[in-house]
Amino acid sequence: MKRLLLLTTGGTIASRQMEEGLAPDMDGSTIARYLGEVMFNYNVTVQDILQLDSSNIQPEEWRLIANHVYEAFPHYDGIIISHGTDTMAYTASALSYMVCNIPIPVVLTGAQLPIEHPLTDGVDNLRTAFSMASSGYPGVFIAFNRKVILGCRAVKTHTMDFDAFSSVNWPVVATVSGSGLTVNEEAIPPVMGECLLRDKLCQDVFLIKLTPGLNPEIFDMLLQMNYRGVVIEAFGAGGLHFIRRNLIEKLHKIAAAGMIVVVCSQCLYESSDFTLYQAGQKVLAEGAIQGYDMTTEAAVTKLMWALGQTDNPDKVRDIFAASLAGERGV
Amino acid sequence: MKRLLLLTTGGTIASRQMEEGLAPDMDGSTIARYLGEVMFNYNVTVQDILQLDSSNIQPEEWRLIANHVYEAFPHYDGIIISHGTDTMAYTASALSYMVCNIPIPVVLTGAQLPIEHPLTDGVDNLRTAFSMASSGYPGVFIAFNRKVILGCRAVKTHTMDFDAFSSVNWPVVATVSGSGLTVNEEAIPPVMGECLLRDKLCQDVFLIKLTPGLNPEIFDMLLQMNYRGVVIEAFGAGGLHFIRRNLIEKLHKIAAAGMIVVVCSQCLYESSDFTLYQAGQKVLAEGAIQGYDMTTEAAVTKLMWALGQTDNPDKVRDIFAASLAGERGV
Repeated sequence: MKRLLLLTTGGTIASRQMEEGLAPDMDGSTIARYLGEVMFNYNVTVQDILQLDSSNIQPEEWRLIANHVYEAFPHYDGIIISHGTDTMAYTASALSYMVCNIPIPVVLTGAQLPIEHPLTDGVDNLRTAFSMASSGYPGVFIAFNRKVILGCRAVKTHTMDFDAFSSVNWPVVATVSGSGLTVNEEAIPPVMGECLLRDKLCQDVFLIKLTPGLNPEIFDMLLQMNYRGVVIEAFGAGGLHFIRRNLIEKLHKIAAAGMIVVVCSQCLYESSDFTLYQAGQKVLAEGAIQGYDMTTEAAVTKLMWALGQTDNPDKVRDIFAASLAGERGV
Repeated sequence: MKRLLLLTTGGTIASRQMEEGLAPDMDGSTIARYLGEVMFNYNVTVQDILQLDSSNIQPEEWRLIANHVYEAFPHYDGIIISHGTDTMAYTASALSYMVCNIPIPVVLTGAQLPIEHPLTDGVDNLRTAFSMASSGYPGVFIAFNRKVILGCRAVKTHTMDFDAFSSVNWPVVATVSGSGLTVNEEAIPPVMGECLLRDKLCQDVFLIKLTPGLNPEIFDMLLQMNYRGVVIEAFGAGGLHFIRRNLIEKLHKIAAAGMIVVVCSQCLYESSDFTLYQAGQKVLAEGAIQGYDMTTEAAVTKLMWALGQTDNPDKVRDIFAASLAGERGV
């Protein structure tokens, strides 16, 4: 029987109606009771490590979760992490780097309705997560709505729908049907070395989603606040304004001051390509790193992680040039 | 024969390959030549008003375009605006407020490939735009990939695909098929009064897409920079972190200083609902305005526009409580 570890962190799945709205209130053994007999298929250990709305899950919590995963992995066939949906894609991306090359499945899941709710999707999601966690396929994944998505390719695209997560620029890893769990092996990135715990993160990373006419002075402010990196969600395949308000000139200034700039697209789907247009080429000339087809969640957490590993801008560039966990495919 | 006005502003559709990549280089009469005989179906006047990559289209350009539209509308049956795709959804949203209740169709369109390219989508898009502009249905729309989307509901979701725009939380207004242009009348918001040119915008609006662990001090910086409004893309249906880094306390501070806060979701689809969870309720208690099912493009431009109309926070709140052009449906 497969040995599985269920780490609970809170989220809607564990929530109850409180005076101020839903809030996490249930431990893992209570959650497990809602699964009933299916639990007898596995040898499950439950460990409650956090009890938070995932809006409150921040880099410190990623570190805690990564440490639990790293310590546990030699003793289990798979790990399930119950987690709020709101920041699950960020946690999954961060873990993808922090416990890179993990040789077992680490599957995050949660729910849009509490496990106590008669219509909950939590039972189904946990069933999918347990199945994926027993599959032997290594990596960090999100199991949701009878689908398994590569962790660093997941984006929460729906606030309410049970089909809350999309697999962005990457095929779905597995689906549930009358055939059981069907895994698309080509969608599982190869393990490329030993799994090491690299849990240091730099929190001085800021995300800017451009809006037309954005005042470039914000970048001076970020320098003043000692930010070390910035991810820019540019327009379309790679546009930034430079007439009247010259963002490109400003990027030159912040790059000269040692700040790392990663440029992505604010379009959800497909790759950015800053070589296509004049504006984009100017940005690359200022030394910006292209995010290509990475999700914003994967790009922000990768920059936090890369700057946690090294102070050397060339090494950060090297880290971004590689796909560590399937986060970039271009 | 329908009298149509084609206003050109640049964009990929008008671009040619330059040394530094694609850049707008063609005037409207050159573009029109690629349409061939179809032009004889309409009485078209062409007016070149800008020649910009849409990444450089900013509130000043919205104002220029709005003025052209407002001056022209009594003399035409419909207006087509050729425009880059990168910020087209922002321009369409801004125009929806600036020339609210326009009694004729104003249809933005563009292309993923220049009109000169043998595989361009520009000809098709212009054909759809001309057809919608002749339809008599009032409002601001985007015509793209044989679909017409309500302007304030459009989001550019794909960097490369011809199907670049999605209609978010709103039905598609019209489709092209063997039946010609099929308009879904229920998707066209009613004209609710006289069309007035209200072209004043406040540029001191900042967009923050939350990332886990965001340092709340950024809001102090925004106050210091004299920003008057901020749109926050929160997590999920409405989450913000408040442990260790207390964003909610900070929202209290900036609200007290007179800054208007609009809260939306970073999920592309479905409505935010800040009443559901503890964290969200705390935010509403601080006076934040809910964005509900508005797109970020519609919310940011609406806040810029509302703060251009009034200094009174209660009036801004009233403006957000109403759907002016179909931008909110909840």
